Amino acid sequence: MSSSNTAPSVKPPMRDALVAAAFRLFLERGYEQTTVDDIVTLAGVGRRSFFRYFPSKEDVVFPDHEGCLADMTGFLAASAPECEPVRRVCDAARLVLRMYAENPTFSVQRYRLTRRVPGLRAYELSVVWRYERALAEYLRGRYAGRPDGTLRADVVAAAVVAAHNNALRSWLRSDGEGDAAATVDHALGYVQTAFGAEAAPGAAGGTPAALFGGPTGHPDDVVVLVSRRDAPLWRVVQEIEAAFGRG
Amino acid sequence: MSSSNTAPSVKPPMRDALVAAAFRLFLERGYEQTTVDDIVTLAGVGRRSFFRYFPSKEDVVFPDHEGCLADMTGFLAASAPECEPVRRVCDAARLVLRMYAENPTFSVQRYRLTRRVPGLRAYELSVVWRYERALAEYLRGRYAGRPDGTLRADVVAAAVVAAHNNALRSWLRSDGEGDAAATVDHALGYVQTAFGAEAAPGAAGGTPAALFGGPTGHPDDVVVLVSRRDAPLWRVVQEIEAAFGRG
Repeated sequence: MSSSNTAPSVKPPMRDALVAAAFRLFLERGYEQTTVDDIVTLAGVGRRSFFRYFPSKEDVVFPDHEGCLADMTGFLAASAPECEPVRRVCDAARLVLRMYAENPTFSVQRYRLTRRVPGLRAYELSVVWRYERALAEYLRGRYAGRPDGTLRADVVAAAVVAAHNNALRSWLRSDGEGDAAATVDHALGYVQTAFGAEAAPGAAGGTPAALFGGPTGHPDDVVVLVSRRDAPLWRVVQEIEAAFGRG
Repeated sequence: MSSSNTAPSVKPPMRDALVAAAFRLFLERGYEQTTVDDIVTLAGVGRRSFFRYFPSKEDVVFPDHEGCLADMTGFLAASAPECEPVRRVCDAARLVLRMYAENPTFSVQRYRLTRRVPGLRAYELSVVWRYERALAEYLRGRYAGRPDGTLRADVVAAAVVAAHNNALRSWLRSDGEGDAAATVDHALGYVQTAFGAEAAPGAAGGTPAALFGGPTGHPDDVVVLVSRRDAPLWRVVQEIEAAFGRG
């Protein structure tokens, strides 16, 4: 794993030069029309130098994802047991946003390139899949032993990635204008609202609520719920759904 | 678009013969070691017949996805305006499950093959992406004009696909034993619980609930919620989250 998403000053200069040469050519000639030979000629290095840093031409388009995946895996592995898991994977997703936001011009250029080249789109899908799996694996560990633990982990990971990418694409389409972090925070907040408080460790167990009003009845009926404030929210919602006949 | 996921009896026999020959060779020799020439020789047809049905060797591994995508798009386009949108996309996802469950032996063989061949895994990711986009496009239409409509659409589509695939993979890993439909129903039920009642058309607007107990307070406090039964569930949940101090 490279250390490519640390500060630019510590990146290997030759690696940076190859990325810069590649993008200059991709933008001038098109991605398909640019060969690795063209890139190394412009960068003034040999072919072997290229392949020391990048397994293929596609990889030079996404030079920082391996480093970001390594950072994300490390971040999740270092989680304290008392972390709320959904909040933690949202924070992990913010590492990806940070990588994009560090260099808006490059990120916007790449976004446009990726939309035009089907092969790059496929490559990007595989990268997104790897981020999603990293989040899901962490959540599977945290939800181990819970009913539907892997289901919950997979769904939450997918929802976090979809929310992050919705916000990221919106920022990229705006040519990197606006506050990327605020846009992503808002999107991740939506996912946390849907799933976030379910798994708070140490939340009180047991049935949270006394419910007056059964699962069937007239729409105009009144439902009364009485609950301790520290009851797990997901249980409260389950009870309410049952009472509203929508579970 | 082909009509490939209608009843087997109406499939073009030559197309079926090519799929059968391809899978026999993939299982005997491996996917990478099998050429299109090998497949057409075993099937007793010419190369041009192969490419009439399949653009590439990868496509013969997933012969029914184009038809299923077309069915899904048609199903969503035919939705009545009063359909609850999350329920509708869950039903659309069940079309994919039905395709897999129609032929368990083939589906399990393909699952094992796809796990071994990275190129097929990438192809499958692109197919899954297309299903997810079909669901998201429908939801974006239904949520148009709502705050965060595209965010909600993307997140719900991703959650539905993740839940469906979690259940599908669990069934495939069990070698196609067990009740695939029940497994998928359970997984989709989880997503419907999280998102389903939010957008019920015609649901009563306005604040649904009288709440006794503010957003701050001692964990042992009691929160009392009084609500009309026909209030939109998402509003009830919002109120509760605020009352529990977790919004």
